[in-house]
Amino acid sequence: MENILHYDTVALDDEKNALVIVDQTRLPGEVALLSLTRQEEIRRAIYLLQVRGAPAIGVAAAIGVYLAAREIRTEEYGAFCREFKTAKDYLASARPTAVNLFWALDRMERVVLAHRGEPAARIKALLHDEAVAIRDEDVCACRAIGEHGLSLIKDGDGILTHCNAGQLAAVKYGTALAPIHVGLEKGYRFRVFTDETRPLLQGARLSAFEMHSAGADTTVICDSMASQVMKNGWIQAVFVGCDRLAANGDACNKIGTSGLAILAQYYGIPFYVCAPTSTLDLRAATGSDIPIEERPPEEVTELWYEKRMAPAGVNVYNPAFDFADHALVTAVVTEHGIARPPYPESLRAMAGRRPEFTA
Amino acid sequence: MENILHYDTVALDDEKNALVIVDQTRLPGEVALLSLTRQEEIRRAIYLLQVRGAPAIGVAAAIGVYLAAREIRTEEYGAFCREFKTAKDYLASARPTAVNLFWALDRMERVVLAHRGEPAARIKALLHDEAVAIRDEDVCACRAIGEHGLSLIKDGDGILTHCNAGQLAAVKYGTALAPIHVGLEKGYRFRVFTDETRPLLQGARLSAFEMHSAGADTTVICDSMASQVMKNGWIQAVFVGCDRLAANGDACNKIGTSGLAILAQYYGIPFYVCAPTSTLDLRAATGSDIPIEERPPEEVTELWYEKRMAPAGVNVYNPAFDFADHALVTAVVTEHGIARPPYPESLRAMAGRRPEFTA
Repeated sequence: MENILHYDTVALDDEKNALVIVDQTRLPGEVALLSLTRQEEIRRAIYLLQVRGAPAIGVAAAIGVYLAAREIRTEEYGAFCREFKTAKDYLASARPTAVNLFWALDRMERVVLAHRGEPAARIKALLHDEAVAIRDEDVCACRAIGEHGLSLIKDGDGILTHCNAGQLAAVKYGTALAPIHVGLEKGYRFRVFTDETRPLLQGARLSAFEMHSAGADTTVICDSMASQVMKNGWIQAVFVGCDRLAANGDACNKIGTSGLAILAQYYGIPFYVCAPTSTLDLRAATGSDIPIEERPPEEVTELWYEKRMAPAGVNVYNPAFDFADHALVTAVVTEHGIARPPYPESLRAMAGRRPEFTA
Repeated sequence: MENILHYDTVALDDEKNALVIVDQTRLPGEVALLSLTRQEEIRRAIYLLQVRGAPAIGVAAAIGVYLAAREIRTEEYGAFCREFKTAKDYLASARPTAVNLFWALDRMERVVLAHRGEPAARIKALLHDEAVAIRDEDVCACRAIGEHGLSLIKDGDGILTHCNAGQLAAVKYGTALAPIHVGLEKGYRFRVFTDETRPLLQGARLSAFEMHSAGADTTVICDSMASQVMKNGWIQAVFVGCDRLAANGDACNKIGTSGLAILAQYYGIPFYVCAPTSTLDLRAATGSDIPIEERPPEEVTELWYEKRMAPAGVNVYNPAFDFADHALVTAVVTEHGIARPPYPESLRAMAGRRPEFTA
């Protein structure tokens, strides 16, 4: 099996002016690189989860909107801005929940707005550099999350994770899996349990692949087995990623996260949310302010199956996300350190350290 | 679509001397009746979950061991007993958790033991009648569970269920779904949510089919969505079946039940376990005394999928059951009435009303 860890999940190919991604819908059966140049392809890749995970979506969108800007033919600043805004809005409409998408696109737009009247070629060069910076910062942030998160666990621990908030959800290291990657590098051993994560199976397909490739002892379970695994005493900590973090610490993440947080509290197991500060949305006071994407019923009833798994005529409810109530979150691990309750204060302090806020 | 409710899930065909079952592994795509005469076929049908659900397994085993007894050729009572015991043990080895299997086989054996020295033909006739009685009692018990359970809910309620503890898990009505069937007959409307129930999808395939056939408004969700559905306020009660009920009220049932009970408590939703008293195992003091079947990893990674869903080399943990702690169980609905905490007393009182205990 090819080691997925040898690839960046999301990359900019400057020769071909292309966004290069590892197609996550074909893992673990096949490691296929997609080289995308057209905006329709890039938006579709985000919608179809060929690229997925909040940090990876942010980086992909930054590269995507840079590639769109490259194609703008006008030299007139006002027209350039309008065309840029159209491209930005088009990519932003791909998925509604992960805030990194909007964060990255807003950050790219600020480059345009900060260079009013300058030549289009110069703005394009700056957009290139900003996209690369967003990419590089993501790698560094994830590495830092790994270092901070590692301080919360010890050699030999059993770790439960949900969905994939690993390297495959970022550029390198990931968020929830970063502490494990960093720990493995340092010679720690972990027993990692990955919820399979229905309906799209990111845990069985992606986290299990990534953790096994990295050398962790890896066990796949169905989502419904998390309670039993906790009861067995096999789990010392739960680590999950985050698609949008509200100001009060409510952590929006893959559907099933709220239930997992409730189980962890019941069994007295710490529940850690790992997220770069780009995931923090201070405009969302609570999790209820975060829009929850609902996806097609066929993802539940047909996508991976040889035959339809539910009878015709029944309804399907398929929300892609839910949120762990802040009262259930033991700590939030960011690139700047570990935030603990009360979150309104600790998260605001972390946000204050954002580069774009201090610049 | 053929209405599954027109068939008995488990039946004895006296003309062909066969156990007739609806093959549950082919639902909902196809309603296929299997006519089984050989012991190997019958044991295999139980192991492969072609017949499944604690009450249905009990009835199938009773019919199965009767059919085995019919084939015994000796007229000598001691030899008859030994051959009967061999057939009984063979069927009992099919699955370890559902106590109804052992309960029904023990009850059949008591017929043999109670008629020491009588002619083989007479004992065979008595075994036939006992198997039919077990079947008929199951229908009556499930109907009574439905009546008692219906008193706990009201018209228009949202009901969440896990796995399939419906007609397809019994002969008619089922246990957890019996209150809904009885309510629908009386003109109630319910909004039923069925956990899909990984890995074998009994919720998506069977409960959704059964509830939709019966006329309930039916919605399939992934197991990981139960928390969100509860948070949305859509659920007024959770009803689950039971494979073995410990003396203290710990309720062993399909994997995922313990987690669901924890979620229900968190959201303040009543959690009802429905079970005939044949499911009560007074020798199991707590849930920890109940053996938990582990099933093959391929059920998780390959069974329904077009391709393998987890990378080679990873471990899979696949327990078929867990148990809801008695402290999380609002009430146990039996054919004799509703048992409430403290369960050691209330369940013992219910058990005292078992026909075979009072006979």
